[in-house]
Amino acid sequence: MLDYTRVENLSAADVQRLRAVYEPLTTSVRDLVDATIRTEVDADAVAAATAEIDSATARLRVKQRDRSFGIQFGADGDSMPWGNAVIGVRNPTAPPLVIRRMPDGSVTSDFYLGAAFEGPPGHVHGGVSAMILDHVLGDAASTPGKHRLTGTITVRYRRLTPLGRVRAEARVTRSEGFKTYAIGHLADDEGVTVEAEGVFIEPRWARD
Amino acid sequence: MLDYTRVENLSAADVQRLRAVYEPLTTSVRDLVDATIRTEVDADAVAAATAEIDSATARLRVKQRDRSFGIQFGADGDSMPWGNAVIGVRNPTAPPLVIRRMPDGSVTSDFYLGAAFEGPPGHVHGGVSAMILDHVLGDAASTPGKHRLTGTITVRYRRLTPLGRVRAEARVTRSEGFKTYAIGHLADDEGVTVEAEGVFIEPRWARD
Repeated sequence: MLDYTRVENLSAADVQRLRAVYEPLTTSVRDLVDATIRTEVDADAVAAATAEIDSATARLRVKQRDRSFGIQFGADGDSMPWGNAVIGVRNPTAPPLVIRRMPDGSVTSDFYLGAAFEGPPGHVHGGVSAMILDHVLGDAASTPGKHRLTGTITVRYRRLTPLGRVRAEARVTRSEGFKTYAIGHLADDEGVTVEAEGVFIEPRWARD
Repeated sequence: MLDYTRVENLSAADVQRLRAVYEPLTTSVRDLVDATIRTEVDADAVAAATAEIDSATARLRVKQRDRSFGIQFGADGDSMPWGNAVIGVRNPTAPPLVIRRMPDGSVTSDFYLGAAFEGPPGHVHGGVSAMILDHVLGDAASTPGKHRLTGTITVRYRRLTPLGRVRAEARVTRSEGFKTYAIGHLADDEGVTVEAEGVFIEPRWARD
């Protein structure tokens, strides 16, 4: 059984306030990640930057949760999947994706993949494409209060995806009992680059 | 055609020296990423940390390459895939994996996945598992000087993978012309958690 923590006494306004405190920090760390990969400054400058980074880390670790962020909920039911590797607004390694649900039930997201997501030179790592499609198809297959996890996913690479602006789209094709089938793709301005199809399953412990 | 840059006048010793300069910076940023997700300090402490982070970023951006890191090679042929999203020693978002090739041609890697790789509470994001398997199977399917890219990969989730120590293994099952087939899995101390199989292809532009 997974631990979805309800945070007591945290109103919707509190959730927004926390987001306003921590989201700019996360954005700054994302910018630092990019600079860390691309920098060509000399050893002395690197040492000076590293000292500042270690100082910032020490400040943040003065008070911290024991484990990973988890998925927390406010008293009004606001979901805070803020540590999530793909959509987490407090996770500097997440692009992060903002996923919109369309009137027809499909989902879509426009996002930017920079130097941190590279595989072949100048292009998105195939594994990053698979990671994002896993999340977006899973989101399409889930409904409010009923989160479905990936059973099996197949990813087909039609061509390389250049680093830069990318769009993801996904939709459910059919459902059978505990199984929901979804398809989707990544695309750049020229069209589809990677396709995926998967089956998503309601966890046993959530079927009561 | 991909740009694999050969860096002129960069000896094997130079490559090691550059690694010694930039790898500790990357390790510090990885630690900061973890602290950013888990911190519970107040707004004033967050603001102080953010100011130090932005200062470090500015120092690093004084001199930087125009685009992503790419895959650079030293004059002696040393490969530097240092920006890679899975194995890059200069990419703070990479775990990073260190992949060993065994005498039988299979590959294996032991690594740690912390808070930055979370999906379901306390567990590895299914997309992260897919990302890592894509890379490890692709590595098994490649040989020195002949890098094969993913054509199609299927990932099957047997159970959730807890955050913590994880092992990946992969091996080639057969080859047919330009296609190389590989299988692999992720495992924790209790056994296999996620399985994958894929076909890997030598890019057209590299077939001459």
